[in-house]
Amino acid sequence: MSFQKTSHVPMEKVTVEDPFWSQFMERVRTKLIPYQWRALNDAVEGAEPSYCIRNFRAAAGLADAPFGGKVFQDSDVAKWLEAVSYTLMWHPDPELEKLADETIELIAAAQQPDGYLDTYYILNGLSDRFTNLRDNHELYCAGHMIEAAVAYYRATGKRRLLEVVMRLADYLDTVFGTEEGKIPGYPGHEVIEMALFGLFRVTGVEKYKRLALYFLDQRGQEPNYFGTEHQNVPRRWLSYTMGYAYNQSHLPVRRQTEAVGHSVRAMYLYAGMADAAREENDEEMLLALRALWKNMAYRRSYITGAVGSSHWGESFTFDYDLPNDTVYGETCAAIGSVFWARRMLELEPAGEYADVMERALYNGILSGMSLDGEHFFYVNPLEVLPEASEKDESKRHVRPERQKWFSTACCPPNLARLVASLPDYIYGTADDTLFVHLYAGSTVNTEVNGRPVSVRTVTGYPWKNRVSISVSTEEPLAFTLALRIPGWCRNYRVCLGSEELRGEQKNGYLYLARTWRDGDEICFTMDMPAERVYAHPLVRADNGKTAVRRGPVVYCLEEADNGQQLNRLVLERGEELKVREEPGLLGGVVTVEAAVLREKDAGGGSLYRTEAPSYEKVPVTFIPYYAWANRGAGEMSVWIREKE
Amino acid sequence: MSFQKTSHVPMEKVTVEDPFWSQFMERVRTKLIPYQWRALNDAVEGAEPSYCIRNFRAAAGLADAPFGGKVFQDSDVAKWLEAVSYTLMWHPDPELEKLADETIELIAAAQQPDGYLDTYYILNGLSDRFTNLRDNHELYCAGHMIEAAVAYYRATGKRRLLEVVMRLADYLDTVFGTEEGKIPGYPGHEVIEMALFGLFRVTGVEKYKRLALYFLDQRGQEPNYFGTEHQNVPRRWLSYTMGYAYNQSHLPVRRQTEAVGHSVRAMYLYAGMADAAREENDEEMLLALRALWKNMAYRRSYITGAVGSSHWGESFTFDYDLPNDTVYGETCAAIGSVFWARRMLELEPAGEYADVMERALYNGILSGMSLDGEHFFYVNPLEVLPEASEKDESKRHVRPERQKWFSTACCPPNLARLVASLPDYIYGTADDTLFVHLYAGSTVNTEVNGRPVSVRTVTGYPWKNRVSISVSTEEPLAFTLALRIPGWCRNYRVCLGSEELRGEQKNGYLYLARTWRDGDEICFTMDMPAERVYAHPLVRADNGKTAVRRGPVVYCLEEADNGQQLNRLVLERGEELKVREEPGLLGGVVTVEAAVLREKDAGGGSLYRTEAPSYEKVPVTFIPYYAWANRGAGEMSVWIREKE
Repeated sequence: MSFQKTSHVPMEKVTVEDPFWSQFMERVRTKLIPYQWRALNDAVEGAEPSYCIRNFRAAAGLADAPFGGKVFQDSDVAKWLEAVSYTLMWHPDPELEKLADETIELIAAAQQPDGYLDTYYILNGLSDRFTNLRDNHELYCAGHMIEAAVAYYRATGKRRLLEVVMRLADYLDTVFGTEEGKIPGYPGHEVIEMALFGLFRVTGVEKYKRLALYFLDQRGQEPNYFGTEHQNVPRRWLSYTMGYAYNQSHLPVRRQTEAVGHSVRAMYLYAGMADAAREENDEEMLLALRALWKNMAYRRSYITGAVGSSHWGESFTFDYDLPNDTVYGETCAAIGSVFWARRMLELEPAGEYADVMERALYNGILSGMSLDGEHFFYVNPLEVLPEASEKDESKRHVRPERQKWFSTACCPPNLARLVASLPDYIYGTADDTLFVHLYAGSTVNTEVNGRPVSVRTVTGYPWKNRVSISVSTEEPLAFTLALRIPGWCRNYRVCLGSEELRGEQKNGYLYLARTWRDGDEICFTMDMPAERVYAHPLVRADNGKTAVRRGPVVYCLEEADNGQQLNRLVLERGEELKVREEPGLLGGVVTVEAAVLREKDAGGGSLYRTEAPSYEKVPVTFIPYYAWANRGAGEMSVWIREKE
Repeated sequence: MSFQKTSHVPMEKVTVEDPFWSQFMERVRTKLIPYQWRALNDAVEGAEPSYCIRNFRAAAGLADAPFGGKVFQDSDVAKWLEAVSYTLMWHPDPELEKLADETIELIAAAQQPDGYLDTYYILNGLSDRFTNLRDNHELYCAGHMIEAAVAYYRATGKRRLLEVVMRLADYLDTVFGTEEGKIPGYPGHEVIEMALFGLFRVTGVEKYKRLALYFLDQRGQEPNYFGTEHQNVPRRWLSYTMGYAYNQSHLPVRRQTEAVGHSVRAMYLYAGMADAAREENDEEMLLALRALWKNMAYRRSYITGAVGSSHWGESFTFDYDLPNDTVYGETCAAIGSVFWARRMLELEPAGEYADVMERALYNGILSGMSLDGEHFFYVNPLEVLPEASEKDESKRHVRPERQKWFSTACCPPNLARLVASLPDYIYGTADDTLFVHLYAGSTVNTEVNGRPVSVRTVTGYPWKNRVSISVSTEEPLAFTLALRIPGWCRNYRVCLGSEELRGEQKNGYLYLARTWRDGDEICFTMDMPAERVYAHPLVRADNGKTAVRRGPVVYCLEEADNGQQLNRLVLERGEELKVREEPGLLGGVVTVEAAVLREKDAGGGSLYRTEAPSYEKVPVTFIPYYAWANRGAGEMSVWIREKE
């Protein structure tokens, strides 16, 4: 085994101008971020108050109010600041920046003289801090604040928040560790690990990396810290079947092989582990990560990129257990899988990592936000029957309509920060190679082998199957352009002018090594039929069913197009799937149409009968999954029965 | 509308000698009843103590112990006594009767001077009695004690317990009612309604019937009693989506049209309503019962006779919501459906009532007990994956193996009293008609039109398709013999000697009116192929699937015969189902064999793939559902995918 490290090209060097993604990025900038600001300030009518800003004002001595909201409420403003930072990188906005600066001052004012920063304990009593790492999210909030500070520094060069979080991290470094007098603990909810790596990268301060490595390697050591901790603190612990696996502390991380427990925590942990493997050239960690990846990607993820099969503990369950109608599939978990996937790509350029990133982005993440940018899904089901959500307790978490906000409002801000930082995920470099991981209209100005190169991508992806990539270079430049061949793509063609280019296809990338000249423009064309996808036979929920996918986009049937009782529908094996461009529908989509069978009531109303099913033929329209639930509450299904 | 009342022939007039049922009745007598006695006395190793007898001893002042076990623990000994009573009717046993007499003395000793009898409140403070009718099961325990007393009086003629429960009922009659100074309440868990009708029938005391009618008609009146009650008592109420529907108090019973809430409570309520309709010739009640019946039988019951789709509240959910792997399907609920069905038959002789009775008896009730008579299911799933029961919280209630006992031990004693009283369910009479509702080897000595008649049934049912019914009569007797034509039976033939008899088939019964002579023996032969059954297309869980049934027996696939990953199996439409007698297997069963397709892993391990499923052919064996889980923990499935 070995590392073949790559680096992602940071968004500072990438400009996105894309018919698909720009609309989502703009929606985040113009709708979600202002909406979120109102939410943080308890100004969204009909939504539960956040108390987030009020908590900071109270902690800073500027208001007299008790702590409000959840114990992790601080993280919401951190994620807002992070998302703001990214938008400022592609859309400067002095007014927004001023608001961010003021907010940062408020945060700084709340920080304690020793560097501590968490409004829950500042307001409720500092003497109790760090007594319930398992449940109370102090290190999680710290992690998000660090990520915000790094992003804001990247965006503006301003050090104010960076210095706040450095003081915080310095303080944490004095508190945590296995040395005498320190707390041998680690976070109940991970995120600070990858945050500290980020802080290390912008500051160069080694101890932040060391602290991250400590948090990773201490996790799951015997005796389990949370077991020790909870002899002294009140128990607030659901008796999940999974025990310590709930927060991935059941084993030392290097010995973990299965994606387990709370799925957002898991994704964040593995992302941090990937940072560690890269920083330390840690092969043992890479081995663990590969095992975890295989388990997640090949046994425990949905076709939409959703992860987390159960609402109990918002967790992974077991191999191939992927129910469509009781799934959790938290938006944050799919986002976490993107964080992790990009970091895996930085350990080794394998298409499967980018495939997962792409699948989650175009499906299970975008589904988290409505077309108006102001309604959100926490849970992203693959099958919904509104009556079940209403009348079956085990499906109450599955909502048929997006909500305005949540008391635990992790998902909308997470979506904002990911979509706003999309340019961070498109390109990568390694030695003499420029990787194109995602296909989105964009320009990258970077270096390969120390020489500047500019590449511009123009595409109508994911609706169109053509990608044009042109090179700008002052003088002819020898380098390798590595195009990702998506896992869904079986046939493609690459031309430079009239010349068909042949390169080496390896591990999901087509490597085109040549001396590129200014103005060289390649045309990459992928066969992109609407096609049937089948699940592994052990996926019980999908047995005998098929899903429709075109390119990276997974489709679904919705009541708005196809009426109720979607479960009656059966797609015949030979039936044609017709693709239709619908620029006026759902913000502009491509739909898939087909004639399907609809099961009739052959048994005269009896519940069980010996008459075999009979059918009538009806037309149906599949829409992109991410765009569902924008036309009122109704049934939805990704998987449809198939008749061979 | 009108009543066509029938009467069931009570078991005092029926002797069962049947190759199928006698073994279960004997198992109840020789295994379950002694085992249950040990359980009641906390003498089953490895099982949670019952405390039941200890509670009565403490309440009687014979022991110094706090109340132990659940609030409804008294009902366990009542159900034991009831089961004992029935066995004494077909297997006199002086020693067992002595034990029962002693137990009755203990119960009598615990009764309070005013007639009150519930050890929970006797031991915890009588001042609190009747303050939490919703949760605390006092009237439920009273109901079961009344049922025990009636049964013991029927079996032995002894009045000791009957007098105890009459004092109890007299007392309750002074407590409950809408009159000034009385409590306008009713039970949170029904059963006392049908019990009081039974007490009325053996004693002739009208006020018991009046009290039952009051409990029925007061239920669900506004303001809701439980709403009023729980302003004053501590809340111990799960926030089910169903609210008052949980215990069927959401509406006055005459306005109820859907089987809702806790399924055992629902079945017991409807049984009580049927008693009321019969006693009072209450057409409005009959109309409500028909609506409830249609809803339960045609929209909310499983092919095994199980009812209760969700473990949340152990309840009904909504129409056609019949998940196989998260079902509750409590043994008690299927038993309750038999109580209700027989009472519906007494309102009008329609085959659909007997069909439900038969389906539950041969499938979802017998499945509740192991072949050793000492292990039990509370929940009777139609699909089990042991890994899911272990790792998925939403399926923890679904056990892959029967348990020794339960802290809430309602099911085993309920099963004991039903199976021990099986002779109570076989025959019915009305005017000049003798109905045969169930086919079991037995002799009935009853009267039609005031003239004695004896009929003997000999059959190998449900394995054999022939039923021989012979008449003994002192002199030729004109009467109608009404044979139930099971709902599953499409072709049959009835002969008397070489003469084929033709009668009128109406509403599920074949009416054979003639003058019967001593020794007349008819041969009733039903076509009984193993066949595929399909569910209504709105039953999402069964779409694209089929179940195998032969006669009244529903089959399943079990890991013990067919290996793991049963979900890979697909039955082709044209494939032959071969029937095989297996006298040495599982206590003697008929199995069904077939060659089925087994889905191969066409996609090289990938989770989602465009390769269509491919198959190999493998042989499988279906066993009767009731006999599953007698060969270790493993997968099981009633429904199998079908390929047309």
